[in-house]
Amino acid sequence: MSNVAGLPPWVVIDPLLQSWLVEDIGRGDRTTQGVLVGKTNTVKALWVAKAPGIVIGLSIAKRVFQLLDANVSFVATAREGQYCEAGEQVAKIDGALDCLLTGERVALNLAMRLSGIATLTYKYAKQISDLPARLVDTRKTTPGLRMLEKYASQLGGAVNHRMGLDDAVMIKDNHIAAAGGIGEAIALIRSNMPYPLTIEVETESLEQVEEALQHGVDIIMLDNMPPELMIMAVKKIRDRNSGIKIEASGNITLDNIRAVALTGVDYISTSAPITQSKWLDLSMRICL
Amino acid sequence: MSNVAGLPPWVVIDPLLQSWLVEDIGRGDRTTQGVLVGKTNTVKALWVAKAPGIVIGLSIAKRVFQLLDANVSFVATAREGQYCEAGEQVAKIDGALDCLLTGERVALNLAMRLSGIATLTYKYAKQISDLPARLVDTRKTTPGLRMLEKYASQLGGAVNHRMGLDDAVMIKDNHIAAAGGIGEAIALIRSNMPYPLTIEVETESLEQVEEALQHGVDIIMLDNMPPELMIMAVKKIRDRNSGIKIEASGNITLDNIRAVALTGVDYISTSAPITQSKWLDLSMRICL
Amino acid sequence: MSNVAGLPPWVVIDPLLQSWLVEDIGRGDRTTQGVLVGKTNTVKALWVAKAPGIVIGLSIAKRVFQLLDANVSFVATAREGQYCEAGEQVAKIDGALDCLLTGERVALNLAMRLSGIATLTYKYAKQISDLPARLVDTRKTTPGLRMLEKYASQLGGAVNHRMGLDDAVMIKDNHIAAAGGIGEAIALIRSNMPYPLTIEVETESLEQVEEALQHGVDIIMLDNMPPELMIMAVKKIRDRNSGIKIEASGNITLDNIRAVALTGVDYISTSAPITQSKWLDLSMRICL
Amino acid sequence: MSNVAGLPPWVVIDPLLQSWLVEDIGRGDRTTQGVLVGKTNTVKALWVAKAPGIVIGLSIAKRVFQLLDANVSFVATAREGQYCEAGEQVAKIDGALDCLLTGERVALNLAMRLSGIATLTYKYAKQISDLPARLVDTRKTTPGLRMLEKYASQLGGAVNHRMGLDDAVMIKDNHIAAAGGIGEAIALIRSNMPYPLTIEVETESLEQVEEALQHGVDIIMLDNMPPELMIMAVKKIRDRNSGIKIEASGNITLDNIRAVALTGVDYISTSAPITQSKWLDLSMRICL
Amino acid sequence: MSNVAGLPPWVVIDPLLQSWLVEDIGRGDRTTQGVLVGKTNTVKALWVAKAPGIVIGLSIAKRVFQLLDANVSFVATAREGQYCEAGEQVAKIDGALDCLLTGERVALNLAMRLSGIATLTYKYAKQISDLPARLVDTRKTTPGLRMLEKYASQLGGAVNHRMGLDDAVMIKDNHIAAAGGIGEAIALIRSNMPYPLTIEVETESLEQVEEALQHGVDIIMLDNMPPELMIMAVKKIRDRNSGIKIEASGNITLDNIRAVALTGVDYISTSAPITQSKWLDLSMRICL
Amino acid sequence: MSNVAGLPPWVVIDPLLQSWLVEDIGRGDRTTQGVLVGKTNTVKALWVAKAPGIVIGLSIAKRVFQLLDANVSFVATAREGQYCEAGEQVAKIDGALDCLLTGERVALNLAMRLSGIATLTYKYAKQISDLPARLVDTRKTTPGLRMLEKYASQLGGAVNHRMGLDDAVMIKDNHIAAAGGIGEAIALIRSNMPYPLTIEVETESLEQVEEALQHGVDIIMLDNMPPELMIMAVKKIRDRNSGIKIEASGNITLDNIRAVALTGVDYISTSAPITQSKWLDLSMRICL
Repeated sequence: MSNVAGLPPWVVIDPLLQSWLVEDIGRGDRTTQGVLVGKTNTVKALWVAKAPGIVIGLSIAKRVFQLLDANVSFVATAREGQYCEAGEQVAKIDGALDCLLTGERVALNLAMRLSGIATLTYKYAKQISDLPARLVDTRKTTPGLRMLEKYASQLGGAVNHRMGLDDAVMIKDNHIAAAGGIGEAIALIRSNMPYPLTIEVETESLEQVEEALQHGVDIIMLDNMPPELMIMAVKKIRDRNSGIKIEASGNITLDNIRAVALTGVDYISTSAPITQSKWLDLSMRICL
Repeated sequence: MSNVAGLPPWVVIDPLLQSWLVEDIGRGDRTTQGVLVGKTNTVKALWVAKAPGIVIGLSIAKRVFQLLDANVSFVATAREGQYCEAGEQVAKIDGALDCLLTGERVALNLAMRLSGIATLTYKYAKQISDLPARLVDTRKTTPGLRMLEKYASQLGGAVNHRMGLDDAVMIKDNHIAAAGGIGEAIALIRSNMPYPLTIEVETESLEQVEEALQHGVDIIMLDNMPPELMIMAVKKIRDRNSGIKIEASGNITLDNIRAVALTGVDYISTSAPITQSKWLDLSMRICL
Repeated sequence: MSNVAGLPPWVVIDPLLQSWLVEDIGRGDRTTQGVLVGKTNTVKALWVAKAPGIVIGLSIAKRVFQLLDANVSFVATAREGQYCEAGEQVAKIDGALDCLLTGERVALNLAMRLSGIATLTYKYAKQISDLPARLVDTRKTTPGLRMLEKYASQLGGAVNHRMGLDDAVMIKDNHIAAAGGIGEAIALIRSNMPYPLTIEVETESLEQVEEALQHGVDIIMLDNMPPELMIMAVKKIRDRNSGIKIEASGNITLDNIRAVALTGVDYISTSAPITQSKWLDLSMRICL
Repeated sequence: MSNVAGLPPWVVIDPLLQSWLVEDIGRGDRTTQGVLVGKTNTVKALWVAKAPGIVIGLSIAKRVFQLLDANVSFVATAREGQYCEAGEQVAKIDGALDCLLTGERVALNLAMRLSGIATLTYKYAKQISDLPARLVDTRKTTPGLRMLEKYASQLGGAVNHRMGLDDAVMIKDNHIAAAGGIGEAIALIRSNMPYPLTIEVETESLEQVEEALQHGVDIIMLDNMPPELMIMAVKKIRDRNSGIKIEASGNITLDNIRAVALTGVDYISTSAPITQSKWLDLSMRICL
Repeated sequence: MSNVAGLPPWVVIDPLLQSWLVEDIGRGDRTTQGVLVGKTNTVKALWVAKAPGIVIGLSIAKRVFQLLDANVSFVATAREGQYCEAGEQVAKIDGALDCLLTGERVALNLAMRLSGIATLTYKYAKQISDLPARLVDTRKTTPGLRMLEKYASQLGGAVNHRMGLDDAVMIKDNHIAAAGGIGEAIALIRSNMPYPLTIEVETESLEQVEEALQHGVDIIMLDNMPPELMIMAVKKIRDRNSGIKIEASGNITLDNIRAVALTGVDYISTSAPITQSKWLDLSMRICL
Repeated sequence: MSNVAGLPPWVVIDPLLQSWLVEDIGRGDRTTQGVLVGKTNTVKALWVAKAPGIVIGLSIAKRVFQLLDANVSFVATAREGQYCEAGEQVAKIDGALDCLLTGERVALNLAMRLSGIATLTYKYAKQISDLPARLVDTRKTTPGLRMLEKYASQLGGAVNHRMGLDDAVMIKDNHIAAAGGIGEAIALIRSNMPYPLTIEVETESLEQVEEALQHGVDIIMLDNMPPELMIMAVKKIRDRNSGIKIEASGNITLDNIRAVALTGVDYISTSAPITQSKWLDLSMRICL
C-alpha cells in the first residue's frame, strides 16, 4: 500500500500525481530531452531545506519521481513532519538524470506547499500545546489538494475537521433559516443521512447554544463569539452534557488563539495555517 | 467559448472544475440535501470582499455554480482584476439555494486563492510600474492550478513566463553540465525542438553571459547576481545584440525589486507573488 | 442541481451514467441506428411495473435518457419509493424513438436493480416498523453502485451506515489484534482521523462490551450475539451511558429481525436487502 | 496478459477495479490507517466459502489486492468455477495487513456477487445438461459489470448472448414497427452494419416466424410462446433451413426450462440467473 | 441523440472530440485569445472543398464547434458522403469568431482525414459497383479513430468488417497452429464466446478451405490466392453450402479488384482505402 | 523515463496507448482468448519491413506490448528512424503468444502510420538536404496523434513547428482583420501571452512584410508567394534584420520545394508529409 501514515493508498493518490506531471511536462521537457538525447546518466542528488520549518511531503515527492521512472531511489533523511533548520539535508536521491530534471518542479512544488502549511500549523499548535484544546483545520483548502493539504495540517500538529461535505454535517445559519429552525434542520437531516455521521451546529449566541442543546447535536461551534461569551457558552454546555464537543471558530490568530483555548473549548478551528501560509523553500542539488 | 480574456475555453477548464466539485461533495452534501429535501428555493446572494485587494476568478466561480445548476445567474459587479476595498460587493447571484450552498466552498476557495495571488502580484508590479522592466512569474505554482494561477498572476500585473516544460527552453546549470557546455547544450536541444521555441540560458557570471552571447540564445537570465554585476551584464549584452531579452532572477523581494529593475533588465522573475501570497478573504451572503 | 432528495448533484453521478451507457452501446446500437437511419420519429412510451414492489430510480432513469438526448420528456407518475402493484404505470415518456430504444436497457437495468433492493429493504423494515430499532445497511454493495444502492436502501426504509472506509471508523477483531487491544486501537486511530468521525467497535462478548465502554466509543456493535446475550449487553451499555448507540449485526433474517429489535438495540444492520434481493420487473411500452 | 480464461486483458479491466477501490476507500481507510500507522505487518489469510455454490472471481479478487500492493501473494486453491461446499477454503493469501484489510470488501463484494450468479446459472444449466439446448444470458446485467457478470454466467454453465448493442443485431417489435415490417428492418440494418454481425429477430407468432424465414435472418427468437407453439415453430424453421439458430425466451424458470428445452430449440435465454441470484457468502479469515 | 446515420450517440463520441480539442488548444489559443480579448464578434464562414472528392464528417465538425460554443450554427450544405467538385461550398457557419478560429484546425483535420478515406473507398467501390461482390474494410485504422474511419469507409461505399477483436472471430494461421488445427481452434473458441458471433477462417489453400468447410464456419477468407485458385475455392464452397460467405483478401489494388470480384466472392477486404488514402483538402473562409 | 529521444515520458504517452488497446480489444479478443484458454505459450516473433522506407515507432510498439504484459521482450534491431529495405527485419520479440496476438494490430497500426509519415518526410527533406532551408511540419495532424506524428516528422528529417495553439503565436489574415491591423494584433496578443513565446505573422504581399517588419515579429511567413516575390521578400527582411526567421508556406510539393528553398528562406512548412503519406507496410511473423 502506501506505507505512509496518514495518506490513503497510492491507488487513490496516483491519478492526481500523474495529472500534475502531465500539467508540467505538456508535450515534453524540451530542455532535458534535448540535452540528454540517447544518454542514460545516473546521478546522485540531495534535497535541502533552505529555510527552517516542518518538512513534509517527501514520501509524495518520492512517488512523483517513481511515476516517471520506477528505478529511482529516493531516501528521506528527515522524518515526515520533522522540524529542519535551513541548510539541512532532507533526502538523498539516486536516479536517472532525466527523471530528476523532469520531475523536479512537480515534486518540489508539492513538498514546498505542504511544508509551508505544516510549518504554520505547527506555530499555531505550539501556542496551545500545553492546553487541552486542539487546533482544527477547515474546508478552505486549495481545490484538488484537499487530501494532501489536510495531511500537511495533521502532521503540522492540527486535527483534521471533516474532509468534505459528506463525512459530517455542519448546520450553518442558512441551513437553519431554510429549515425554519435548528430543530427542524436536525430532524430533516437525520432522516436522510448515514447514521454514524456527527452533527455540528454553528451558534452565535447563548440562545442558539440553548436551542442546539435541546436537539441533541454532537458538536456545537461557537462562531465569532468574544471570549467572555465563549466562557459562558462553554459552561452552559458542560453543565448539561459532558459528551458534546465544543469548537471555537472565527478570526483566530497567532495572538488570540491562546486566549480562546483558555475559555475551555475542545477544538479551535481556523483556516489560517492553510490559507495564510507561505511555501517553505526547498531545493534539489544534483551532483554532476 | 469562455468569453474570459486570458483563459482557455471551458472545454479545457471544465474537467478541473468538475473534479474539484467532486472532491468537496464526495457522496453528497449531507447538510444541504437533508435540509432542502424536496424544496427548490431560489434565493439571492452577494459576494463581498472582506479585505482590500485585487479580486479575480469571478468568471470561474460563475462556471463552478453553473456546472452544478445551469440555471444559476451570477453577475460579477466588479471587473475581473479590479482593486476592491473591504466590504465592497463583487458579485450578485440569483439561483437555487442548494446550488449556492453546495458550490460555495469550491467557488470561494478558487476566487480567494487567485485573488490573493493577484493582490501580491499587484504589489510587486506597482514597485516598478514606472520603469520599463516587467514582472514575470515562474513554474512554482500549485500542482493542478498552473493555468489558473498564471491567469491570476497576469491579471495582477505580471507577464507570464513559460507555462510548462514544453513551451520554451530553459537551460540551467545541470543541463549545461550534462551537455558539456552552453554551446553543446544549445546545439543538442535545437536539433530536437519545435523551431518557434525560444531558448533561455541561466547565467551566474560574466563569463557565462559571454558564452551565451556567442551561441545565439533568445533570453539570458542573470541568476542571483548582485546589482553591480547585473549592470555590467546588461551592458555587455546590449552592446552586442539589442534583440536578446534580459531576465533577472533570484531572491527578489518587495524591497529590492526596484533596485533590480533599475539595472536595465527587461524582465524580473520571481515566484514570490504565488508562493508567498495569502488568500484574499471573500464571503458569500445569502439573503434568506 | 439534482432535485432528487437523497442523491448527490448530477456532477457527481453523471460520469457513472455516461460510462454505463458507453458500456452497453459500445460502437453503436446497430439495430436502432440501422432502422432509424435519417428518421427522427418522436414517440410516447410508458414504464410499467410488472411485479408489485417499491419503485425507485425513476429520476436516474430520466437522467440516463437525457444524457442521450436533452429533449426527452420523462415524467414519473409514481413517487420515488412508492409501493406499486403489478401493472401500475410508473412513468410517461415523450421523446425521440432512437433515444428510447438505445437507452432503454441501461435505464431499466438501473431502476430494476434499485427497485429490487428497495422492495426487500421495505420488507425487512416493515417487520420492525412499530419498534424503535431502525434497519441499517452495510458496505456489501455492488462495486460502482455504492451511492445508488445506498439511496435505494434508504428509500426502502433503512438508514444508511457508513458510505465508505473514510466516513466513520469501524474497529473489527483484526484491527484490535493488530493494535493489541481495543483501547490501543482507539488511541491510535483517534490521533490520525478527522475529529468529527464516530468510532464503532465490534464486540462479541460482554467482556469486549465492557472494554469498549471504558474507552469512549460512539457505537457498539453486538456481533452475532444470541438474543439473551444481546439483552444483557444492551442493559450494561444503557446503565453506563445513554449516549452510545447500539447496533446488532450478524445473520439477520426476515424471521429473526423482530426478536433482535426487541432486545432494545438502536440499529440492526444487515446486508441482506442488498445482497439477497432480486430485481423488480419493470418494462417500457412504446406506443408506435 | 490476464492468464484468466474468459476475461479480457487487465488493461481493459483495471480501470474498473481501480474506480471500485476508490469508491470504497474514499479519502482513506481511517480504521486501518490509524491502527497500522508505521507498521508493515505481513500476515496470512484464507478465503472460505460460507455457503455451497460455484466459486468464481478469485482471479479478479487477486488483482484487486495487487492494485493496492504489488507484493501480495494470492493463491486460489479452488479452480475458477468450482462447486464448493460450505466451509471449503478457496484461496490462501500472504501479504501486508493493511492491503488485506483495505481491499477486503471490494474483493469479496465482487467474488460474492459473481459467485452468486455462477451458482444460479449452474442450477438452470443443470436442468437441461443432458439435452442439446444451451442456456443463454441477456443484457440485463448490473451497469458497469457487464463483462464480469457475463464471465460469471459463462463459468456457471451458460453461453453468453451479445455483450452490447453493437456486437449483434436484435430486431424487436418496436424496430419492426418503425421500419414497417421485418423485411424492411433487415434491409435497412444490413446496409448500415459490419457484415460479420448476425441478425436475430424476435417473433411472437408463426406468421412472424414465416416472415423472418423469408428474409434470411441468422437467429429466430421465439418470444413468450407456449410450448406447443414453440414445437410448431421449431418444425417450421428446421424444415426450411437447418442453419438458422432458434432461441426461446420469456418467463423461463427452473421449473419450465426443461419443457422448453424439449421443444427442440437451440438456445434458451433468460436473465434470471443474473437478476434473480443472491450473493454467495464468502469470507476472509486473517491469521493474526 | 446523434441524428447522424452510421454514428453512435454523442455520449460515445464526445469524449474523443473533447480530448482532441484539448490536444490542440493546450493551455489556450494564444493568438485568438489575444486578439479577441473582451470582444464577442459573430461572423459568417464557409467551408469549401478545395479538391474533388467525397465530403464527409460535416456532422462531426459541427459537433466540434458546438463543444466549444453551444451557440454556433453550422449548416451542412453538402449531404454527408456527397461527391463535391473543387470549389464547392459544403457548409455555412454562423458563430462567435473565437469559436471558429480555435476550433478550425481540429474540425478540418477530422473532416479532411475522413473525406480522404471516403474518397479512396469510393474509387475502389466504383470498380466493382456493377458486380455482386462488396468492398470491405479491415482493422488497419488509425488508433483512436476506429469508429470514425469505419464510418468514412461505409459512407465511401464499403461495408464495415468487424470493429474490434470482440465482435467477430477471425481465425488466422497462428491461431490454427496454437490450437493444433482448424477444428480444434473452432471448438475451443466456440466454448468461450458469445453465441451470436460469427466465425471467419483464413485459408491459403484448397485443403484449408476443405477443412474449414468441415467445421462449420460462417465466413471463409481466401487469403492471397491467385484468381484461378480463388475460382476453384469459390466453386468448392458454393457446391457445399450456399450459406457460407466468402471473402477475398490480400494485395487488393485498384487494378486487380475487378478481377477478384469476378471470381464470385461475396466480399473483398482491403485496408488500402484507409492506409493508402490522402487527406481531401477542405478550407474554412471567414467573412470578416 | 522513456529512454526514447524525442518523446515525452511514458506517463504522458501511456494513457493514449491504453485507450487505443481498449479501442481494439473491446470486451475481449475472442479468437485469441478462445484458442489459448489456460495456455501460456511463449513464442518468438519478428517484425519485418515489407516495403522500403524509414522505420519508426518501434519503441512505441514495444510499450504497447508491455502494457499488455510486462514480461514481453521486444528488441528493436533497426535504429529508430533507419531506412530499411523491403524484407529487412526490424525487431525481435519474445513473449506470451496471447500478448503478441492481441497487441499486434495496435502496435503495427501505430508503427505503420508513423513510418509512412517519416518516409515521405524523408523524401521531402532529401530534396533540400544540401541547402540551408529546413523542412517544417504543421498542425495538420490526425486528432489524438499530434505528439506521435510530430515525432515521426522529426525523425524523418523535418523540424517541428508549434505543437498546439499555445506554444507560439501565429497571426493569420482573420486575426489581422479582427484586430484592425498587424500592429494592433501584435500589441493585443503580447499583452496577454507568456513572454517567451515567439510571434509569427502570415504575409501575402511585400506591403504586409513591411508592416510585419515594423512591429517586431520573430518569424515572417511568406504565404503562397510566387518564387520571384519570395526572393524580394527575403531580401527586404534580410536587409532590415538578420534575426527574423523566414518561413515559406503554401502548396509545397516534391517538385517545387527545391525552388522554394533556393529563394533563401530559412524554413519551408508543409503538411504534405503527414496528410499525403501512406502507411509503410510492416508485418509480424510469429514462429510457432
